[in-house]
Amino acid sequence: MKIDISYGSGGKQTSSLINDIFLKNFDNEVLNKLEDAAVLDVKNRIAYTTDSFVVTPMFFKGGNIGKLAICGTVNDLSMMGARPRYLTAGFIIEAGADSEMIDQIAHTMRVTAEEAGVKIVAGDTKVIEGNGNVYINTSGVGEILKEGISIQNCHPGDMILLSGNLGEHHAAIMSERMGIENNIASDCAPLFSIVSDLLENDIEIRCMRDVTRGGLATVLNEVSESSKCRVEIEEEALPVSDEVKGFCNILGLDPLYMANEGKMIAVIPGEQSQKAVEVMRKNKYGSHATIIGKITEGNGVNMTTALGGNRMIDILYGEGLPRIC
Amino acid sequence: MKIDISYGSGGKQTSSLINDIFLKNFDNEVLNKLEDAAVLDVKNRIAYTTDSFVVTPMFFKGGNIGKLAICGTVNDLSMMGARPRYLTAGFIIEAGADSEMIDQIAHTMRVTAEEAGVKIVAGDTKVIEGNGNVYINTSGVGEILKEGISIQNCHPGDMILLSGNLGEHHAAIMSERMGIENNIASDCAPLFSIVSDLLENDIEIRCMRDVTRGGLATVLNEVSESSKCRVEIEEEALPVSDEVKGFCNILGLDPLYMANEGKMIAVIPGEQSQKAVEVMRKNKYGSHATIIGKITEGNGVNMTTALGGNRMIDILYGEGLPRIC
Repeated sequence: MKIDISYGSGGKQTSSLINDIFLKNFDNEVLNKLEDAAVLDVKNRIAYTTDSFVVTPMFFKGGNIGKLAICGTVNDLSMMGARPRYLTAGFIIEAGADSEMIDQIAHTMRVTAEEAGVKIVAGDTKVIEGNGNVYINTSGVGEILKEGISIQNCHPGDMILLSGNLGEHHAAIMSERMGIENNIASDCAPLFSIVSDLLENDIEIRCMRDVTRGGLATVLNEVSESSKCRVEIEEEALPVSDEVKGFCNILGLDPLYMANEGKMIAVIPGEQSQKAVEVMRKNKYGSHATIIGKITEGNGVNMTTALGGNRMIDILYGEGLPRIC
Repeated sequence: MKIDISYGSGGKQTSSLINDIFLKNFDNEVLNKLEDAAVLDVKNRIAYTTDSFVVTPMFFKGGNIGKLAICGTVNDLSMMGARPRYLTAGFIIEAGADSEMIDQIAHTMRVTAEEAGVKIVAGDTKVIEGNGNVYINTSGVGEILKEGISIQNCHPGDMILLSGNLGEHHAAIMSERMGIENNIASDCAPLFSIVSDLLENDIEIRCMRDVTRGGLATVLNEVSESSKCRVEIEEEALPVSDEVKGFCNILGLDPLYMANEGKMIAVIPGEQSQKAVEVMRKNKYGSHATIIGKITEGNGVNMTTALGGNRMIDILYGEGLPRIC
């Protein structure tokens, strides 16, 4: 069934959309009350964040926009040392969208939310004119398990860990857009279990960031700027799968700037960094974890290239690939 | 300056958009840290909600989409007996939007957030192809001041209060769309101060709802359904300004179904209802507050018309006026 503009009126059609798709899939005792706001218990201090998802195409190898919308927000909470607990979901639906497709997206959100241990406790639906696209905003609340994890907190001597291969989400979306057949799937995944493994193993974490839009280059520049330090990485240490490497070579892409949706960096004091890598590697989302560099005095991001040269790594300038996450 | 698609890349242009517009306007110590999530202290249990705003036109008499985006979410929290504390803001910007217009929207959000006593602590910006529209999602966290306020909580003998005149937001938007010159301004306003006044005066509140998309008819049907009771209202008691009445007569509109953005109902035990009206009327956003009806045994929503007849009031069916809030 095609959604038309009347589904945004707030009347009967809006109700049917909410009941038949969102309540059916997200079903939980808080959401089902349909109050103006969810009432929740939280322990400790909270982490609180939001992200909007506009990816095109909405379905791709390894996931869909709904999986991204859960993972993106859950990962932002996790990076602050918080256990993700509650999400809200706001849907902006363009007229012409198919209700079965929305149902499929909502179903994926439910499954991913269950894996990530979060409940969708409040939602909103709007319908606008358009071509059948769906945009999703999620916000999330988590309970802080460990205080003091911060992008301002990195020190010379810390090591930089990356949880796995770069560029898979970006390459999967581009392949889909360009009709290229390959086996590259988006790495889209909820990362709280890696964070929880690190904390349970008493690893001291200075800072964590998921490596999304803007790629590793952007994240490392944010670390350098916020912690007022220099970031030194080794090109040869950067993990990239052979298939993504091949894809990048053909299209002239740089994995440093490519978006990921299931990868994170962790900055860890030098003496604990090897243990941290081992912990990460035992997690199914961290099996290719590796140390990619270190924090030193100074500023900027420097990469020692495979040929032994040095290259300053700036943040992305220009288009990159919009609407990829 | 026109925003183009490169502003959504996550690179330098995205940074400049965030710094020059959002951080400049929303400036506070939590947001400025630019962590993946805000870390916050909360007292008590929390209320948590979300809403997206897609109104067209984005500017209208009495406000703009930014004012709506703050008030809508703040009001949803307030209706649960919560003090609004923190908001997130997610912007989906269509290419072609003017950066000065976005700056103006963000400025209004800042001013309205200050009045409502909330801080915008996390945000997100995406850019999509399109015609220069801006869509805003806000989510909000509040601290519950009074437990047990719920749409499931109304009892026979309770009275239904409405905080003021109906239809003003809807009529203002329609006037703007149709190029009709008049003095009707949107009623868009943050309502927490009314709630706070009621609580401070020891009024027992069964249920509150802001009267937005779908209008009073929809809200009263939700009360009837959730509390398993009958709602009886008096047509003659419904407050509508002369100017909105005239507007509705010409266009054949029914104020019962028109959207408001600064009006609420409160369901109050009979013996306290007169006192509650007096408290509301002392608040600048409740000066036209009045009792519009009562809760009885049964189901559905019945209106005694001005001519003494009876009319069952159903929820909106069909288009209404999409994209109005």
